[in-house]
Amino acid sequence: MIKVVKIGGNVVDNEELLVQFCRQFAALEGPKVLVHGGGVMASRMQEKMGLPAKMIGGRRVTDDATLQIVTMVYAGWCGKHICASLQAAGCNAMSLSGCDGNLICASKRPPIAINDEMVDFGHVGDVKKESVNAAALQSLLDAGFVPVLNAINHDGGGNLLNTNADTVASSVAAALGAELIICFEKAGVLLDKNDDASLIPELDGVLYRQLLEEGRIDGGMLPKLENAFKVLSLGVSKVVIQHSSAPLGVSGTSICL
Amino acid sequence: MIKVVKIGGNVVDNEELLVQFCRQFAALEGPKVLVHGGGVMASRMQEKMGLPAKMIGGRRVTDDATLQIVTMVYAGWCGKHICASLQAAGCNAMSLSGCDGNLICASKRPPIAINDEMVDFGHVGDVKKESVNAAALQSLLDAGFVPVLNAINHDGGGNLLNTNADTVASSVAAALGAELIICFEKAGVLLDKNDDASLIPELDGVLYRQLLEEGRIDGGMLPKLENAFKVLSLGVSKVVIQHSSAPLGVSGTSICL
Repeated sequence: MIKVVKIGGNVVDNEELLVQFCRQFAALEGPKVLVHGGGVMASRMQEKMGLPAKMIGGRRVTDDATLQIVTMVYAGWCGKHICASLQAAGCNAMSLSGCDGNLICASKRPPIAINDEMVDFGHVGDVKKESVNAAALQSLLDAGFVPVLNAINHDGGGNLLNTNADTVASSVAAALGAELIICFEKAGVLLDKNDDASLIPELDGVLYRQLLEEGRIDGGMLPKLENAFKVLSLGVSKVVIQHSSAPLGVSGTSICL
Repeated sequence: MIKVVKIGGNVVDNEELLVQFCRQFAALEGPKVLVHGGGVMASRMQEKMGLPAKMIGGRRVTDDATLQIVTMVYAGWCGKHICASLQAAGCNAMSLSGCDGNLICASKRPPIAINDEMVDFGHVGDVKKESVNAAALQSLLDAGFVPVLNAINHDGGGNLLNTNADTVASSVAAALGAELIICFEKAGVLLDKNDDASLIPELDGVLYRQLLEEGRIDGGMLPKLENAFKVLSLGVSKVVIQHSSAPLGVSGTSICL
């Protein structure tokens, strides 16, 4: 069973968290893929260069200059920094964007209406299960490489596109029929978000609907869980939500249909 | 016969030259590897960020901030931009640094004396034939990928190192027993640097020594030719020096021992 692990920019941006995570990821057995973010660092770099980030509905408006910066940050610094750290931890990582080996071919997002206004996100792309070149990823896994993917993808026509790392992770896991392990800063799905002891170790559709009806799911956790059940219906075999520093796939909350 | 092609930052920095080159490179038959520079763009990015490049003896002093910038520029923007352009030209490119799949493990350069002064270049590494993981490169070629390498490599201990793209190209060609095609802004080795018609189509050691004795080799061409004869002695089968927009490997000056 292939495992697809997702980490956020916060892990990449914190040397201590990154080293801890790399140790756990290197120890994870079997074929695996890592998908990472880097939004925090991209915004900081935009600020440094006098081009502050413009976000609409949580998504980064990506003009020419922004595309260059996010490509430099995600595919350049974040990707190669993670890769060197994983290599040092004994994991044969290979940091890749969607243009590399044509792994992920995204579609440019057309301008869309948000709050009655047309918004053009620029060089922003959407990725779905069908965007993923599963055969190419499999050939890298077969050759003993561990793909480390960022959110920079291409359109096949020579253009890079900025996409969403969570969607990349979900789409890759669905295309590979893999297990999806989503790392964040909490121990897993908690009944009380301030109490790690309230962790739900296993969550299926029945329990989820029951907790929803009782209003016991924290608002911040809702989109994560909605996405988890959605990707399970697309071919992902299992979703685990857990802390980035904990042993991977055996802690946190395990989610099944 | 594997072909290793080297282009400078000037090609990457000029959309017209890059598109012309990508067309030629995509048309080159057989297994191939591309190595690219990006120094011009790195210096410009350093300037933009208020950290002007510090060069000593033609090499970039690479402190923490500079390492981040060159990694972002070479491995991020240049590598992915070239890769997307090659994919659009029908070439299954994959942009990689030395940390990726442990392709090239460089050695950090110790401080050295230059003009009686000790110079510490910082995060600068040296690469030689033995630094190159030929088996890993071969497995990528066998899987149908076209490696596109930049000058960011690693030390195996978690650290990235800034190296020299010319040396990377020479070392990779030597390790693979490949043909090395070096692209630059002239048609090849010229007897009169202002006259393309004075091109020497074939240059062997005998003719080279004769031209040297007659003082007919241009000063700017000397280091290129010295390096060509050096890498031929290290296992490179043939060196071609040519224009980046010309058909690859069949124009310019072909150099043999």
